[in-house]
Amino acid sequence: MKSVIEELEAQARAAKAASHRLAYLSTEIKNKALRNIADDLLARQNEILAANQIDYKEAEASGMSAAMLDRLMLNSSRLESIAQDVLAVAALPDPVGEIFDMRTLPNGLQIGKKRVPLGVIGAIYESRPNVTIDISVLCLKSGNAVILRGGKEAIHANSALARVVQDAVKSAGVPDGAVQLIENTDRALVNHMLKMSDIIDLIIPRGGAELIKFVKEKACMPVVAGGIGVCHTYVDRSADVNKAVAIAFNAKVQRPTVCNALDTLLVHTDIAEHYLPLVAAEWAKAGVEMHGDERALAILKQNPALKLVPATDDDWGKEFLSLVAAVKVVDSLDETLEHIERYGSGHSEAIVTEEYGAAMRFLNEVDAACVYVNASTRFTDGGQFGLGAEVGISTQKFHARGPLGVRELTSYKWIIFGSGQVRT
Amino acid sequence: MKSVIEELEAQARAAKAASHRLAYLSTEIKNKALRNIADDLLARQNEILAANQIDYKEAEASGMSAAMLDRLMLNSSRLESIAQDVLAVAALPDPVGEIFDMRTLPNGLQIGKKRVPLGVIGAIYESRPNVTIDISVLCLKSGNAVILRGGKEAIHANSALARVVQDAVKSAGVPDGAVQLIENTDRALVNHMLKMSDIIDLIIPRGGAELIKFVKEKACMPVVAGGIGVCHTYVDRSADVNKAVAIAFNAKVQRPTVCNALDTLLVHTDIAEHYLPLVAAEWAKAGVEMHGDERALAILKQNPALKLVPATDDDWGKEFLSLVAAVKVVDSLDETLEHIERYGSGHSEAIVTEEYGAAMRFLNEVDAACVYVNASTRFTDGGQFGLGAEVGISTQKFHARGPLGVRELTSYKWIIFGSGQVRT
Repeated sequence: MKSVIEELEAQARAAKAASHRLAYLSTEIKNKALRNIADDLLARQNEILAANQIDYKEAEASGMSAAMLDRLMLNSSRLESIAQDVLAVAALPDPVGEIFDMRTLPNGLQIGKKRVPLGVIGAIYESRPNVTIDISVLCLKSGNAVILRGGKEAIHANSALARVVQDAVKSAGVPDGAVQLIENTDRALVNHMLKMSDIIDLIIPRGGAELIKFVKEKACMPVVAGGIGVCHTYVDRSADVNKAVAIAFNAKVQRPTVCNALDTLLVHTDIAEHYLPLVAAEWAKAGVEMHGDERALAILKQNPALKLVPATDDDWGKEFLSLVAAVKVVDSLDETLEHIERYGSGHSEAIVTEEYGAAMRFLNEVDAACVYVNASTRFTDGGQFGLGAEVGISTQKFHARGPLGVRELTSYKWIIFGSGQVRT
Repeated sequence: MKSVIEELEAQARAAKAASHRLAYLSTEIKNKALRNIADDLLARQNEILAANQIDYKEAEASGMSAAMLDRLMLNSSRLESIAQDVLAVAALPDPVGEIFDMRTLPNGLQIGKKRVPLGVIGAIYESRPNVTIDISVLCLKSGNAVILRGGKEAIHANSALARVVQDAVKSAGVPDGAVQLIENTDRALVNHMLKMSDIIDLIIPRGGAELIKFVKEKACMPVVAGGIGVCHTYVDRSADVNKAVAIAFNAKVQRPTVCNALDTLLVHTDIAEHYLPLVAAEWAKAGVEMHGDERALAILKQNPALKLVPATDDDWGKEFLSLVAAVKVVDSLDETLEHIERYGSGHSEAIVTEEYGAAMRFLNEVDAACVYVNASTRFTDGGQFGLGAEVGISTQKFHARGPLGVRELTSYKWIIFGSGQVRT
């Protein structure tokens, strides 16, 4: 164990040393590094996909769930999409060096803020190998060094991807040590990593609730926690039914295994008899199983093609990550707001309504990272929001909320230009 | 113990309940509450000062240091100054509700951010009773509920001040529970408080290095840590000597017991023989003791009026909080940058120079919350920076750096106005 810990500490020191130089690296070199990564993801895709196949087959043999296997899987089209996201980040303005809030105080001091990188970012994640690229690229663009710790179920793909990144950035002139991957999958290394507050400025855990809870409790440095999405869509009595069917369908079905997918559909009682059979019929075609409350079941039971299950208390506040939705009929917007406050995870919440007052109340009163009127919660995503690839989705309120992109990985320092001022 | 923990949990739940209403409280009511506090601090000063006298006499009898006694002490003029700071906060724009970064995406979604309070803020602090007012006022202005845990050495003044605040805000219409003071001084309550991540959104420790380290290690929620200031002033070879004397004198002497006071003076060798005797003579009049390196002592020993001590390794990187300064002669700006990187605490650093290139290099390369050219580090303060009273000075890079005022106690949520958009 000792030598493995020493290796981790050497990696961390190398990242710290690189971070000092990274903070001043020119935008040109950083962008060249990113373009190299995008090129090499495609040029070296055989190597990457072969490594991913090893992980995938092992995971399949071990009985991993379909949702988890989908997260693990890479293919040409996903690599192409990842490379496009890398180029989108390269095309973003460099946030580092931005000077803002500059003003002159009455005593003549000129004071403002200059944007700087955070320093060294540690990422602890589970089965999605694309996180290796997303986080590396966003850290490089924002001038941060990064220490990656992926899950052991994706270790072959992560190693291949990290090699591609390291080679690509080195040839662009990025200092050695800027991107570190911990290849030993012993859990004790995570514990040690979480104590290294002298070196690691921020930890980003991406994965299930247990991982996030563990990291929050053990980390001595700031943590951006998120990723758990218990997302509600509320269909108000005044909703446009066609929009409401399309939005709920998209939010549940378009990619059910991710955190911004719909978990609970809340429907106003005045519209439930009209709306619920329509959305249920569409969902049924896609194989969605509905866990309904009594009133929802009473409306839906007439259609024998539906997969209906009586909802239990556990269904409210549950992140399904699969083709399952909880469905509840509510009497009012008030009841909806109370339900979301009680069961929501502060991720993404939507109202479908044509009533102005209901829309504004929902926007004002729902306390979540992303609050939607008349749109699918599936949009909660750094790429969709125009931030480029995202490093994660924060469901806490501190530092940054919702999708975290390049700017969210920076801090600032106050800069003060004086001419001999002293305090009286 | 159990009933005390239960009492804390009841206070925390009351704060959480109040925070939901506080988030929507009108600016008028919040400002009226602040004006009431300012009025009552003066109207009820006999009650406050009498309570402070109990604390002060107990502390004096227990042999508390002069620096700590100064932190503890309240008088009419300090109360007047605190009340002025409260009014300055009342006069600030309300950060809550600000809508920013609003734009329209290609798919027609209108997306942006709305500023919201953090929720419930926990403050753990030591001997300065004015912190009770500063933090309450900044939390109220920014729509946050607050749970205060001051040191036992200031418990009488803190209780009196909290009563003043609670009465003043109640009469303005602020919901009950918004300001909570933990009056039991058992340390175990702090441990329990630091685990309440469901209720407390942010912890602010203000005090010595041990308190901050303890809180960072034990807290399950985000922590804004800071307050430890190992501050350097570097007098470059091209410095204006008069400015350099005035700045170093002010930074060391004007209030030596606080975190933005000068700890180490670094002087370029080319200017040391001219500059050091001048600043040392001024410092000597104020009673400053100098811990010099060999070269500094060689220059200064000719003046028998100086209090000179040979510096030891412990003097570099030490926060003196008293009329002591470490003094070192350096050969270059590079040596200065290395010294500050090694020994600085990331708080406030200053260069005195007339050379443009040296000023810009210092501003760019020093990694600290506040970096000054030709000014005293004593300006690092929320009031001086125009933020109103400050909740603390952050020396970490996450969320906010340097003085934390009203805006730094907020977060945002993404708000998205759609017209039926779904993700493809």
